[in-house]
Amino acid sequence: MGRWKPDARGRLTLGALELFAERGYEQTTAAEIAERAGVTERTFFRHFPDKREVLFMGSKHLQDVVVAAIMAAPDTMGPLDVVGVAMESAAALLEEDRPFARQRWAVIAANPSLQERELLKLSTLGAAVAEALRMRGVAELPASLAAETGVTIFKISFELWVGDNESASFTEGIRDALAQLRGLTAGA
Amino acid sequence: MGRWKPDARGRLTLGALELFAERGYEQTTAAEIAERAGVTERTFFRHFPDKREVLFMGSKHLQDVVVAAIMAAPDTMGPLDVVGVAMESAAALLEEDRPFARQRWAVIAANPSLQERELLKLSTLGAAVAEALRMRGVAELPASLAAETGVTIFKISFELWVGDNESASFTEGIRDALAQLRGLTAGA
Repeated sequence: MGRWKPDARGRLTLGALELFAERGYEQTTAAEIAERAGVTERTFFRHFPDKREVLFMGSKHLQDVVVAAIMAAPDTMGPLDVVGVAMESAAALLEEDRPFARQRWAVIAANPSLQERELLKLSTLGAAVAEALRMRGVAELPASLAAETGVTIFKISFELWVGDNESASFTEGIRDALAQLRGLTAGA
Repeated sequence: MGRWKPDARGRLTLGALELFAERGYEQTTAAEIAERAGVTERTFFRHFPDKREVLFMGSKHLQDVVVAAIMAAPDTMGPLDVVGVAMESAAALLEEDRPFARQRWAVIAANPSLQERELLKLSTLGAAVAEALRMRGVAELPASLAAETGVTIFKISFELWVGDNESASFTEGIRDALAQLRGLTAGA
């Protein structure tokens, strides 16, 4: 979802984020988002089932990118390295539009019900990663552990990246977090 | 919260779990829970703000136990070992009443909105663990990584423990999962 795309979907996304920031998420209606984007309410509902999904419809694409990266990884690669590479793919996708990622995160951070939704999406991502690892022949428990660890690293690196540090790269953050985790588990 | 306790709170908890299982969570009211427990609706609301909190009020105590275990761990222990020991304390607490843990989990597993709530509680636990580690002098990023890894291990071991295996111990599951994670990060 490009931030400055001239298409209706892009304008609706941008308009929604503006209104959520100006008025608050709860106080914003689909009709107002449509008006801000210069389209009809009907057009809004052709693109999104409700205002919440403006924030979450990208999750499915992100998950597809992650699963595809897992399936494409060399057979010789260990589960945690596979997950690291897959999470870098996800990070690269979000890096395409950091302003969008930041604005979206600010709205979610201000609304507990949206935080719960975000956590459920991350949990769903973890389950998809575990399933993809099992399809590569990784056993049940290590698949779950590697998958959840990958989601942890994604989540922590994401929060650093959307935070204050202008120069940080999300993909480098993923690599750094995984390296630090290896240090921790080795007892460093 | 013991399952067979004769006090009003214990009876309300038991009654709620029975009704959630029989009728479904959404279809059960606080008044019906009170009736099943043989108390007035007013008594229900003296113990719980709403029916959802029958399932989640234990989370705060669990978090207190985990944080206390972190603060009590020897200074020489590394962050991930500290978190492992703390998660074993949490597991030992839940092991005191496995039937309750199972029934509670079955209700949550059947309701997406309760799953979101459970994930938020786990996320809150992770933040409390990270904060406790920082108070022990662990740096920002390793504290977050160790905390989230601890929650991951807790979550995965919990799901195995409430599952089919009658004989498994939750505390042993925590130790086993942490050992397997160390194997994974070492590239095994």
